[in-house]
Amino acid sequence: MSNRVQIFDTTLRDGEQVPGSQLTTEEKVVVAKQLEKLGVDIIEAGFPVSSPGDFNSVVEISKAVREPIICALSRAVPGDIDAAANALQYARRGRIHTGIGSSDIHIQHKFNTTREKILERAITATKYAKTKVEDVEFYCEDAGRADLVFLAQLVEAVIGAGATVVNIPDTTGYCLPEEYGSKIKYIFENVSNIHKAIISIHCHNDLGLATANSIAGISQGARQVEVTINGIGERAGNTSLEEVVMALTVHKELGLETGVNTQFIYPTSQLVSKMMRMPVQANKAIVGRNAFAHSSGIHQDGFLKHQLTYEIMNPQDVGVDKSDIVLTARSGRHALKHRLELLGFSFDKPALDELYTRFLEVADLKKEVNDADLVDLARTAIPVE
Amino acid sequence: MSNRVQIFDTTLRDGEQVPGSQLTTEEKVVVAKQLEKLGVDIIEAGFPVSSPGDFNSVVEISKAVREPIICALSRAVPGDIDAAANALQYARRGRIHTGIGSSDIHIQHKFNTTREKILERAITATKYAKTKVEDVEFYCEDAGRADLVFLAQLVEAVIGAGATVVNIPDTTGYCLPEEYGSKIKYIFENVSNIHKAIISIHCHNDLGLATANSIAGISQGARQVEVTINGIGERAGNTSLEEVVMALTVHKELGLETGVNTQFIYPTSQLVSKMMRMPVQANKAIVGRNAFAHSSGIHQDGFLKHQLTYEIMNPQDVGVDKSDIVLTARSGRHALKHRLELLGFSFDKPALDELYTRFLEVADLKKEVNDADLVDLARTAIPVE
Repeated sequence: MSNRVQIFDTTLRDGEQVPGSQLTTEEKVVVAKQLEKLGVDIIEAGFPVSSPGDFNSVVEISKAVREPIICALSRAVPGDIDAAANALQYARRGRIHTGIGSSDIHIQHKFNTTREKILERAITATKYAKTKVEDVEFYCEDAGRADLVFLAQLVEAVIGAGATVVNIPDTTGYCLPEEYGSKIKYIFENVSNIHKAIISIHCHNDLGLATANSIAGISQGARQVEVTINGIGERAGNTSLEEVVMALTVHKELGLETGVNTQFIYPTSQLVSKMMRMPVQANKAIVGRNAFAHSSGIHQDGFLKHQLTYEIMNPQDVGVDKSDIVLTARSGRHALKHRLELLGFSFDKPALDELYTRFLEVADLKKEVNDADLVDLARTAIPVE
Repeated sequence: MSNRVQIFDTTLRDGEQVPGSQLTTEEKVVVAKQLEKLGVDIIEAGFPVSSPGDFNSVVEISKAVREPIICALSRAVPGDIDAAANALQYARRGRIHTGIGSSDIHIQHKFNTTREKILERAITATKYAKTKVEDVEFYCEDAGRADLVFLAQLVEAVIGAGATVVNIPDTTGYCLPEEYGSKIKYIFENVSNIHKAIISIHCHNDLGLATANSIAGISQGARQVEVTINGIGERAGNTSLEEVVMALTVHKELGLETGVNTQFIYPTSQLVSKMMRMPVQANKAIVGRNAFAHSSGIHQDGFLKHQLTYEIMNPQDVGVDKSDIVLTARSGRHALKHRLELLGFSFDKPALDELYTRFLEVADLKKEVNDADLVDLARTAIPVE
């Protein structure tokens, strides 16, 4: 089995479904080109049948981006598949992503049908999509809550019908990592033609477990992971590209790699956040404003003695310029001294002690002490030279 | 082993270390009272030796809150422990949380000492803290990267010295869930006096794995989990209270329970976000603005047919009023009809079809169609009655 994990970015499809985040076609092309630079393997560019604007975006992204595969979403119905195929006509390498519900709750309540009919519709849709493009991905919607025996049947059936990739989504973000990993393991052990397709992971973050579930799935043999920049997406969002990629990068013992140029992670995060009007929480892993900021005295002291005491990766590896140090009432003398030196001030021990006492008074009042405050403080003290 | 997991909230200590999030004593008391209402078992109220303001906050929280245990942080040095004990003098039930680095990288680079000396200091600090309070928790800092054999020795030593709780933090947010679970398992299997203490989980979210790691640790026998509201905290933050609690609530098969009144989760999240000036990302699990919002046509259609097709918990369970529906170019006829009915409009099929076409034009231009836009659209059409 290959150790290369394909990164399938759905920022422009599942991510763009977020209320208030819709982009114009021109904006989508900008994001798609940045994703190409980032090194993703597949860009899911839209859901062409859903609106004329979305159709056109898939067309324009297909023209503008040459390296990644361009993927278009469709339900398991001919009209959707036709629209997807038409929208992909300019793609150098196009993929149709079709599928249908696989859990009993979806089969009964959403499709009002039976497992047998779902199997038939899945096979028909896959075969029809194959008449349009060579590369067909099939999604088994709500696989996270599907009956395992039926899920394996469905996977085998669509691979038999020609699917090149089969997506096992945890649509509702329900699974625990061990549970999700076991499902993927079961599929690998019970689908006879499994070697003919790539198994794909698509997790949602409703319980905050999307990244862990994705890694559990990859560990069991899945070789494609569906992600978005900053983890944006429906409800609590999708798996974050930056979290999965950096977890695989930091944990070299897993023996897995991606094609992502990690130094473009932070710039891409900023671009998507700004264009999609989705501010990134300050404590978001990898790309948040505070992700590499050390504020407590204990941490700052340790960090300044040896960067690796509190950092498991270099901020530079993900395109962040430097580890920020922010001073608060929890900061120690060491951090204060360091920051003052960056601002051009040096003090001997007694002067620093006196300054530190005044600093604590200011910090208790002001919550956060910024560079301007420090300059004010320092200017009233006596520099050593 | 008990199936009750103790919730140790460190929003006011590890969470409050976040740059720009510092609270006044009065504000901390408000948050602490809300945490009491939420039903947490332990409130870590501050790090008394770090500043006079922090000392005073622990005093005032001890006076104001009666039900949860009040905990104060200290390093493994007498001055810190004295300050913690003094600050806790008014607590009905007070706990001192002391500890020291346990990984070689911390031992060598931060403390510039040896494993043997660390063991001695740990035992001395625990014994000294025990002279002040009965309830002493010991943290093995950077346990996530510590040598397992040494970690087990350290845990055994501090339990022998009287620690009632031993905290195994993944300080740098480095571990994968399986790896972290294995560490906890190893401790349970290799510490002879393990039954005399509770093992506590304290994870950071640098790779987006804090919730998964916490659940992995609990699954292996830990019965305390250290969390913050909204997952705020140093760098990428701590484990989110709301994620762990709802994962345990939704996954009843784990057979575990907490004392949290889940319907206070959302109001508490809002309170902390507002007071600590830490906006919650729209797609934050459980408490984000979009956590229960359905925007794609496929999802909205399924959701309206049966709520459970796309929701694994009721928003009401966490104190959110209702599942929001937001309309975009990806919304279907069913969702449009439903929203219009909430706004007081009903249409027959031909009128709805015509309205839907115009709705898509507006949605492609406007990104998001709000209620005011829908009223404008609907008023120009012909209501059925």
